[in-house]
Amino acid sequence: MNPTEIIRKKRSGDKLNRTEIEFFIQGYINDKVADYQMSAFLMAVYFQKMDFEETTTFTDIMLNSGVVVDLSEIPGIKVDKHSTGGVGDKVSLILAPMVAACGVPVPMISGRGLGHTGGTLDKLESIPGFRTDLSLDEYKKVIAEIGIVMIGQTAEIAPADKKMYALRDVTGTVESIPLISGSIMSKKLAEGIDALVLDVKTGRGAFMQSEADAIELAKTLIAVGNKFGKKTIGFLTDMSQPLGYAVGNWLEVVECIECMQGKNVPDLMEVTYVLGGAMVMLGGKAGTIEEGISKCKDILQAGKAMDKFNELVRRQGGDISFITNPEKYPKSKYTIGVKSTSKGYIHNIDALEVGFIGIMLGAGRMKVDDIIDPKAGIRLMKKVGDSVKADDTLAIIQTDKKEILETAANRLEKAICVATEPCAPSPLIRAMINEKGVFPWHGCV
Amino acid sequence: MNPTEIIRKKRSGDKLNRTEIEFFIQGYINDKVADYQMSAFLMAVYFQKMDFEETTTFTDIMLNSGVVVDLSEIPGIKVDKHSTGGVGDKVSLILAPMVAACGVPVPMISGRGLGHTGGTLDKLESIPGFRTDLSLDEYKKVIAEIGIVMIGQTAEIAPADKKMYALRDVTGTVESIPLISGSIMSKKLAEGIDALVLDVKTGRGAFMQSEADAIELAKTLIAVGNKFGKKTIGFLTDMSQPLGYAVGNWLEVVECIECMQGKNVPDLMEVTYVLGGAMVMLGGKAGTIEEGISKCKDILQAGKAMDKFNELVRRQGGDISFITNPEKYPKSKYTIGVKSTSKGYIHNIDALEVGFIGIMLGAGRMKVDDIIDPKAGIRLMKKVGDSVKADDTLAIIQTDKKEILETAANRLEKAICVATEPCAPSPLIRAMINEKGVFPWHGCV
Repeated sequence: MNPTEIIRKKRSGDKLNRTEIEFFIQGYINDKVADYQMSAFLMAVYFQKMDFEETTTFTDIMLNSGVVVDLSEIPGIKVDKHSTGGVGDKVSLILAPMVAACGVPVPMISGRGLGHTGGTLDKLESIPGFRTDLSLDEYKKVIAEIGIVMIGQTAEIAPADKKMYALRDVTGTVESIPLISGSIMSKKLAEGIDALVLDVKTGRGAFMQSEADAIELAKTLIAVGNKFGKKTIGFLTDMSQPLGYAVGNWLEVVECIECMQGKNVPDLMEVTYVLGGAMVMLGGKAGTIEEGISKCKDILQAGKAMDKFNELVRRQGGDISFITNPEKYPKSKYTIGVKSTSKGYIHNIDALEVGFIGIMLGAGRMKVDDIIDPKAGIRLMKKVGDSVKADDTLAIIQTDKKEILETAANRLEKAICVATEPCAPSPLIRAMINEKGVFPWHGCV
Repeated sequence: MNPTEIIRKKRSGDKLNRTEIEFFIQGYINDKVADYQMSAFLMAVYFQKMDFEETTTFTDIMLNSGVVVDLSEIPGIKVDKHSTGGVGDKVSLILAPMVAACGVPVPMISGRGLGHTGGTLDKLESIPGFRTDLSLDEYKKVIAEIGIVMIGQTAEIAPADKKMYALRDVTGTVESIPLISGSIMSKKLAEGIDALVLDVKTGRGAFMQSEADAIELAKTLIAVGNKFGKKTIGFLTDMSQPLGYAVGNWLEVVECIECMQGKNVPDLMEVTYVLGGAMVMLGGKAGTIEEGISKCKDILQAGKAMDKFNELVRRQGGDISFITNPEKYPKSKYTIGVKSTSKGYIHNIDALEVGFIGIMLGAGRMKVDDIIDPKAGIRLMKKVGDSVKADDTLAIIQTDKKEILETAANRLEKAICVATEPCAPSPLIRAMINEKGVFPWHGCV
């Protein structure tokens, strides 16, 4: 067996067995399979795909390339959520403390933003002092003590994925369902969870733009989760416009604080409640998703999500004074508004383009080692369906980079489409998906 | 423009323009495009192909990444041959001196073994002292003096291809018509030739296993050659079983010496004479291919191919005593025979598998920097169509690697298929192809 034979076999569309997949992945970690062989393999997988058995084997080998955390000593059903990524997707920051406050332990290992999408880790790190680099021992200690923990992928967790993820980004091999599944599920299964809720995004700002692809991805993720004995359910949610109003790390934290203090940002809270309801149900604290949702609402309204978030921030070293008084946070040097040139209704806010503009402003990364400006970002003033008058401010840009201000404002103006006819946003929660199939989701929030 | 965008564009099946191809290839030479990006690109080309315009642009950029040799001062029409590669394909070692002895200058820049196939360069280098690393000045001098020269690709010749060729070999991206065309034609066009004969292999041991693919490759190569102003014709020849009896570098040199001394190895000599006839015709020393063939036969029978080969070996530093007395060559530590378990006829000798077994024995490379054992290889005792008795030796394995002896022998036994019904080998020369089309070839040897 040699790496080239395995690449050729996959290239020809043949099914790989466990020995072959293991040889290739282990070889990659041990530098016996070169980067250039891995990238050729990844591209071959992009074209020839993997069947379900290959995908689970691939996931299993990635998972077992590192430590699989054992949280069995901690009481309760541990539940996490994973989102396939979007623009303005700050759900985890409200969801995790809300669900934890309902009595369901939430151990969460998150990723950084890459490409046009943001990452939970970058958002958390915008809180001064907040440590995301806990060791796995600390991770276990925090979840045991306060029922919630939010960290980044450590070197021990799925090292094969860590190495491969960086490679995929620069070799055009991101958009592949088996590769995405292996990457997501190997990390999530390593966390020590018992159950998982997935938020699979679809639309312009999602990695899987088409709904059919997103459903296929969701089905694969759910099947893999269940195969590994973790109850997994998913929701297909809209990512054609950014979620909520804020895009940019600290701006998103502030929006989350406001929501946990009772502000209603409708799309953001609808997604948060539905995912939360499912997590609470899977965590055994509610009989149905609907019951879970109403539990989540009560808890949040009672201020307990906020309390739990504050507890998390304190426990992980964050400076709580910025949470209680966000106004003291440093301000961007430049702030400009983008105004409407006509009267009408917002028909579209291109999430992909907003994500790219965010990168320009300093809120995201083009390359893995780019440095993020946590203050930078975009505050939308309107959302799809809203009516506008000429000269209304549609969005505000914040950045320290003077040189890109004008270009960013021009691009943002083009990304927000105003037309004369009234219009409604796309349905937000498109479907609920479990091992039995895809079901319409009748909004209940 | 960045490398990832270009990979994604090709991955999506879009046509690349000259600027994009140039950016990618030049970037690769200048280390701005990483190996792992190139291999992902190559795999994307494997799946999405290139059209004729992209292929000629690609060839042109590869060709002009280095020196294009000018041999116009040397009298005569310079003709070379290129084979797409096979197992036991040692034709060049007899063909080049034979054609040169007919008065047609043969400037040949050859490659190393790639995947399961051998390379002329490795075979020449198995001759103690033989130098294949002449500078281009020496190259010109040798061809001017003795009408033949056989070297390896120098750093100045198509450096883009040199770097890419090594990568393709270990990333499963060899079997792609545009990539093969670009690689072959950029090197051949750089040699300073006036005309070219192609031996395009088809069958299990060829890179293009299917006849349809092989014909498509031949047509592309011929179209590219003619587009660059070089008369190019090709033959489609069988590579379902190894050519001749020897597989392994020095073993093949010995078989060639024997043939140049008059031994008839039918399949090997038929291919050699037909290609030789075409070269002599293109070189203006015969009116037709048939006339060229008979000229070649006369020359070889007169011992003049052998003389020219000896002259070449001496001129390029080889120790002629090994040619005159091959018995003095070092022997492999282990030699075992593979025997027939039944009576019948040889129906198949799987050339691909024989090639892979050759690699195991040390006769080929798994990775670019693997070291070849020139003694190692396989000597077939029978060929397809031959009758065998139980216990007849079918083949002999030679290697220094004790640990793989048994596996190699078992694999080789399975690669040689014996059945009770009589059988004939596949037609050897399937077609003659030129810019006008594909024509049946009526054996005339």
